[in-house]
This record gives sequence, structure tokens and C-alpha cells, in this order.
Amino acid sequence: MSPDLSMPRTLAADLSRYADMAPSPVRLSGWVHRRRRLSGLAFLLVRDRSGNAQVVVKDPAVLAELDGLTEETTVDVVGTTSANPQAPGGVEIIDPALTPLTTPAATSPVEVWRPRISAGLPTMLDSAAVTWRHPRQKAKWQLAAASMHGFRRTLESQSFTEIQTPKLVQSATESGANVFAVDYFGKQAYLAQSPQFYKQMCVGIFERVFEVGPVFRAEPHDTVRHLAEYVSLDVELGFIADHRDVAATLRDVLAGMVETIYERAAGAVDLLGVDVPTVPASLPTVHFQKALEIVGAPQDEPDLAPAHERALGQWARDQHGSDFLVVEGYPLAKRAFYTSPQPDDSRWSNSFDLLFRGLELVTGGQRLHRYDDYVAALAQRGETLGPYEEYLQTFRHGMPPHGGFAIGLERWTARLIEAENIREVTLFPRDLHRLAP
Amino acid sequence: MSPDLSMPRTLAADLSRYADMAPSPVRLSGWVHRRRRLSGLAFLLVRDRSGNAQVVVKDPAVLAELDGLTEETTVDVVGTTSANPQAPGGVEIIDPALTPLTTPAATSPVEVWRPRISAGLPTMLDSAAVTWRHPRQKAKWQLAAASMHGFRRTLESQSFTEIQTPKLVQSATESGANVFAVDYFGKQAYLAQSPQFYKQMCVGIFERVFEVGPVFRAEPHDTVRHLAEYVSLDVELGFIADHRDVAATLRDVLAGMVETIYERAAGAVDLLGVDVPTVPASLPTVHFQKALEIVGAPQDEPDLAPAHERALGQWARDQHGSDFLVVEGYPLAKRAFYTSPQPDDSRWSNSFDLLFRGLELVTGGQRLHRYDDYVAALAQRGETLGPYEEYLQTFRHGMPPHGGFAIGLERWTARLIEAENIREVTLFPRDLHRLAP
Repeated sequence: MSPDLSMPRTLAADLSRYADMAPSPVRLSGWVHRRRRLSGLAFLLVRDRSGNAQVVVKDPAVLAELDGLTEETTVDVVGTTSANPQAPGGVEIIDPALTPLTTPAATSPVEVWRPRISAGLPTMLDSAAVTWRHPRQKAKWQLAAASMHGFRRTLESQSFTEIQTPKLVQSATESGANVFAVDYFGKQAYLAQSPQFYKQMCVGIFERVFEVGPVFRAEPHDTVRHLAEYVSLDVELGFIADHRDVAATLRDVLAGMVETIYERAAGAVDLLGVDVPTVPASLPTVHFQKALEIVGAPQDEPDLAPAHERALGQWARDQHGSDFLVVEGYPLAKRAFYTSPQPDDSRWSNSFDLLFRGLELVTGGQRLHRYDDYVAALAQRGETLGPYEEYLQTFRHGMPPHGGFAIGLERWTARLIEAENIREVTLFPRDLHRLAP
Repeated sequence: MSPDLSMPRTLAADLSRYADMAPSPVRLSGWVHRRRRLSGLAFLLVRDRSGNAQVVVKDPAVLAELDGLTEETTVDVVGTTSANPQAPGGVEIIDPALTPLTTPAATSPVEVWRPRISAGLPTMLDSAAVTWRHPRQKAKWQLAAASMHGFRRTLESQSFTEIQTPKLVQSATESGANVFAVDYFGKQAYLAQSPQFYKQMCVGIFERVFEVGPVFRAEPHDTVRHLAEYVSLDVELGFIADHRDVAATLRDVLAGMVETIYERAAGAVDLLGVDVPTVPASLPTVHFQKALEIVGAPQDEPDLAPAHERALGQWARDQHGSDFLVVEGYPLAKRAFYTSPQPDDSRWSNSFDLLFRGLELVTGGQRLHRYDDYVAALAQRGETLGPYEEYLQTFRHGMPPHGGFAIGLERWTARLIEAENIREVTLFPRDLHRLAP
């Protein structure tokens, strides 16, 4: 039997509209989420992009058909609405005719119908195309998608221009390490570790730019925090006074992302019980030196250890009631060569890290904007101009004071749901051992 | 002299607000776009992201300063507003104090201040970071940015989910040719030629998905139409009747892109004199066989030649008053192996090309959705399952009838402005010979 495609499709979530109406014919399309067979009766849950619908099967011929339709088979269901307070949305479908759209689905190592996936992470990742169908899994990506939307919307409302910059580059962006090499028509090219240089060039064009795109790190360590490819939410803006203007933009972006999560992924928030942070009107900010003091670390400590970051997260919560803390002024020597020094004391830098609940989430800051300063900064680090030469030409042509930041999309989502492993929130993760699916 | 940063910055485009007000102090920040020196007087055009502002310099000391500020130097200007109907926005700045933000800019091979860039394309591309500052050049990207916005907005309003899929893949997407190889931790990986397989997998998860991201083609030909890396606007949707549902979505997307161009890039449309197309409520559609007949080509012709496409563009304009024409039913043997055949005659396919003013802009169609059909399709082409095996597993787990399309962002923008070379609309193009900047 062919599905009656002249009949418009109804989404599961829209069935609730029929709760107070006379029984009506409807057509559902979706996946066999779960069959529950009782004697002389079966409940079929049909899953579509909007949720689940309950279908009650009594006709023996249809019951026999249903026995052959394994979970995850796609199916068309034509039936009649019937109010039932027990069913999702208060409406179920009775007297259905079923039309499988494919042959019965093979058994998946991941059981999508269970309240929680019981498989281990490697199995989940191997079967990602099925794993992500699970409502709890799907909800994670809905948080990510809403975050991207909020990121863009906030920046577009502040006259930022979206850019798309090349991922195939002539020289490594940040340093020679951890970079993937590409055979580029017989020459050597690299995959961009960040759009850093390009977004800076684009500040010279559009003043304010953002990009959402992949970045690549040949990360040789197998950790729960690192990926070989991830999505970077990049921002760069010109005509700033200093890095605090950058941090203010970061605040607005985070507030926009949180707002959009409530607007567009409220269901995901509920399902996963996400403790969505409140973004304060202004982010509490401490200098690196003060941060060392707060955590009782020696004043010559060059960086914050994870334990320090956790302690600072607690301090921000106690002192400012904030999930976020900006630590500014990191030692210049520990930051990328393009970082602007603190004007009154060049041991420190006009850069910052944003801690979210005691974990580093974002790095940002003011960049150098004068050609001579770049030449001096590279010389001081014992680096040659060579690989940066082409990029540095931009700074001969009038670059305003500028700065920016980058948020790792997967890291942000992982923090939101307190994932143990960043791979849980990545659609198809890439790492030292994994290149498929 | 340091700029008075406590004074808020005014954008050039906002100066018009002062036309009917008493003279007021303002601060501008931007680039020295052009200086025009007369005797005892100079006009300085300051360019910022919003447009140009005119500054009148009379003070001999400031005139002397201005002589040293070459075009493209960034500068802070504090002065007083003065109504002048001749000035941009009807307001100019008088009695200015100038503060350069950088040392004077080096001479650029591209003159940004001229009404049109006189340099040839290779020079423009070599100096892309400066070339793109030219208002006519910047306008091209504003069309692209508005188009991306319209693409996403249309799809989000139809419950599509934005995805981000890996660009590092284990096997070539479309075929072994024209693929970039990457050294992936000592193993061989490739750069994705399209998100084709991933967007199909994601239809199994979200039903309707889109992605905006880079794709990579190791295109060994040096043509005005091809890039080694470009931005692909990808769409895939499930539970379709056939490819016409896909073409209907394409129509909505194009209409949304055009709408957003008017909303967000009207200035660019005017400046470049863009002949923005009208997207008809329904796209005129002809079958491939009929298309051959229209252009008087033999009925056994396996593809449309460029001259045929041009003739069909003219036909669509004459017969339907449309800049767009969908040609459906292309010979199955000429389409990718995942293409769905035409149900009543498998010589043809459920796929289409969209012609925009007589040039192919988009390819789309219905895909196979049954595992066995993939196995058969590959066998018929004499291909082994091997490289596709992992991807094809998805089709064992219940994939609905689905289809999609991809629009090349640069190709779309190039068509809009009738660019002779696709590199003119690409921020930092990549091709056989170009890997920088």
C-alpha cells in the first residue's frame, strides 16, 4: 500500500491541536521509535522532528505488519485522532494504516527508544548517525544550534559583518606545532588552526567581523577536552580603547547565546536539566596578579593551574554571584606573539581568559596593530618574520587598535551540560584515533 | 596628542543627525580615505564602516600634520559639526584635531580612494586585505553576507536545524578525483568535497538540516568559475514526495536571500547597480528531454552545453518572465551515484539543475534512501562498496525519502553582479596558483 501523499503531513507536536476536536483523519511520518505489544493490542510510538506520537493498533492484520517493523524503520501512518490524556499531547491515533518507507531497519548497537543510551562512548561514536537520533542526544545539538544563532544575532545587531576565510593556508597561524599538512597541487599547505590573521585583516575592511567555521589542531594528546577539528566562533573588532571593549562584546555575545537557548531550545534545557547561567550586566574582572593572590599562589606563577581556575570560579560565585569571571593581564610571555602588552607594565598583557564555572572557556584580548611592534615582538621571541611576512603586510596599511576572541562551540556546549567528554556534544568528532563516521 | 577616548565615537553615517542642530563636538574614527589639498585649506575624507565623512582643515598646524597622514592611515578626529549640503549626509566637521592611531600607511598598490580600482586582478588579489576596503569591493561581500543571512533565516523559519560536519574525512565524498590529501596523524585523510554524506545522515536525526561551510576541490583547471575552496550553502530534507519538494525549498531559500539583500545590503545594490532578480512564486520547470527540444539539440544529448543553458535562460525569460529555470530529469548516468531515478523511467533521474539567467547555479535532487538501492547503483557503475561502506550503514537504519541541494556562495554572488571572474567576489581565493594571502 502506498502512503496517501495528497494528505498533508501532521507533526507529532501538532496533534495536541486535535484534543478538543471531533476525530479527524491525519497522516504522520516518522520513525518507529518503540512498539509495545500487549495481547490483541499494540502501542506504537512514532518519532518525528517535533517529538513522539502514540498510535494504537488493534486490527490483527496491522498488528502482524507492525511485528515486522523494527525500531528505526521509517513509516507513514494514516489514522484517526482520538483524545487521550495519557498520550503525548493528549491525542493518540487510532485505526491506523501503516506504510513502511524503507525495509525494516537493522538492529542498531544504540537503542534510541530507551530513556537513556546504555552503550559506552566508543559505541555511541561509531554509530553516531543513529546515536544522535536519541532525544537526549539531539537536545545537546539543539543547544549548540541555538547558541550559534544567538552568537550571530547579537553580533549582527552590533553591525558586525559575517566573513568566511580560507582554511587552506600557506603558513601555520599560531606556531608550527600541531598543524595538519595538505598536499596542495604538489606544494605544501596547512589547515588553518584559527582564522586569526584573516579576521584581523578583515577588521581593516569591515571594522567588526565574525566567523563561524571549522578550525584544525593536530592535537597529539588523547584527552576529554581536545578535538582535532572543532567549530570556532570568532570575533574581531577595531577602534577599541583596550581589551575591556573586547570583553564587553564577549559579555553581550554570551548573553545573546543564553537568551537564544531559552527562546529556541527550551525543550532541550528541560530534558537535560541544563543549569543555564545568568550573564551579569558586566562581567566581574580581576587582574592575573590579583587572581594569584586570591588562590594563594606565588606571585611569580606564570599561569593558572586547573585547581586555581576552580578556586577562582568559586570566588566569583561567592563574591559576585557570577558563573563567569574575566581574568585579565596574563603574563605577556605566555600569550601569542600578536598580543598587546599592558601599556603601563609590559610584563603583563592586554589579554584575558574567561572562566565559566571555574573552567577556561574563552581567550581574548587586544592585538598589536603597528607593524614595527610585530617585528619587535617576533624578534624578542627569537622568531623570524618569514612565515608571517605576508600576513604582517596588512599592518603597513593602517590597522586600528583592535582585538577579539574565540569561543569553541563544542567546549561551550560541553560546559553547559557538564559533559564528561567533549565528544558527547560533537556531531562527528575527529581525534587522534577517530576519522569516521 | 592623545585622542579623547572619553568622548563617544560618532559614525560617519550618523552625522546627518546633526544637520539641523547647533554645532556640536564629535569624535570620528576611521581611515584617511582621501586628502584634497587646496591653498590654505584641505578636505579630508574619513572612511569608517558606515561610510565617509568630510573634514575641513584650515589651521596651518593641522594642515602640516595632515600632509604626513597618507591615505589608509587610521585616525581619530575630534571637531565640530557644521551643516553643509555638499558634504556626505549634509554635515561636515570643522576645526578638527587629528590623532593618527598608527604610523602613516605605506603606499598600497591598490588605490582605495579612486571611484574604481584601476589595478588588474592579480594585483587586487595579492593585496586583498587593502583591495576589499574599496567601497565597491566591500559592497560585493555585503551582498554575500546578506545572502548567508537570508539563507539561514528562511530555513530556520521552516524548522531546519543548522549542522556543522567534519571537513576531515576518511574517504572522498563524490569520487576519488579532485580531492586534497591530508596527513592525519600518519594516516591518509581527505578534505571533504561536500558535506553530502553527513547532511544525509543528519536527515536521519533532524529531518531538515542546513550547513554553511567550506568545501574543497583540488580543481586542476585554471578557470574563471572554479575555486579550490569555496563556501557551500547546503540543504537536505527528509519525508519528501520527490525532488520537486526540494526545488520548492530552493525557491523559498532564493526568495529569502533576495529579500535579505534588499533589507541588509540595499546600499550595495545601489552602488553596484545590481539587477536583483525576482523569484517567482513557483519556479518554471522543464524536463531535460523538453529542454533539449527547446534548444533544438538531438534527443540523445547526455548533457546541456553552455550554449544550451543560455538559450534556455532566454526561453525562461520569454515564456515565463523568469530569471530562473529548473531543468529536471537529467540522465541518471550523468548524475552522482546517490541520485534517485525517475520512478517511471530510470533513464532519467529525480534531480535538477537550477539555471539562473542561463547559467547553472544549483544542482539538487532526490537521493536514494534504501540500502539495497545504493548497493545496486554502485554495482551498476562498476564501483565497489569499499570507500562508501561506513557511510552506507546509515541506510540500514531507516532513512526517509529525502533530497537536497547546494548553492555555491561565491558563484551566486558572482552571478548577481555579473562578475567576470569568481575571484572578484571571494575574500581570499584559493586556486591552482594561489594560496595566499
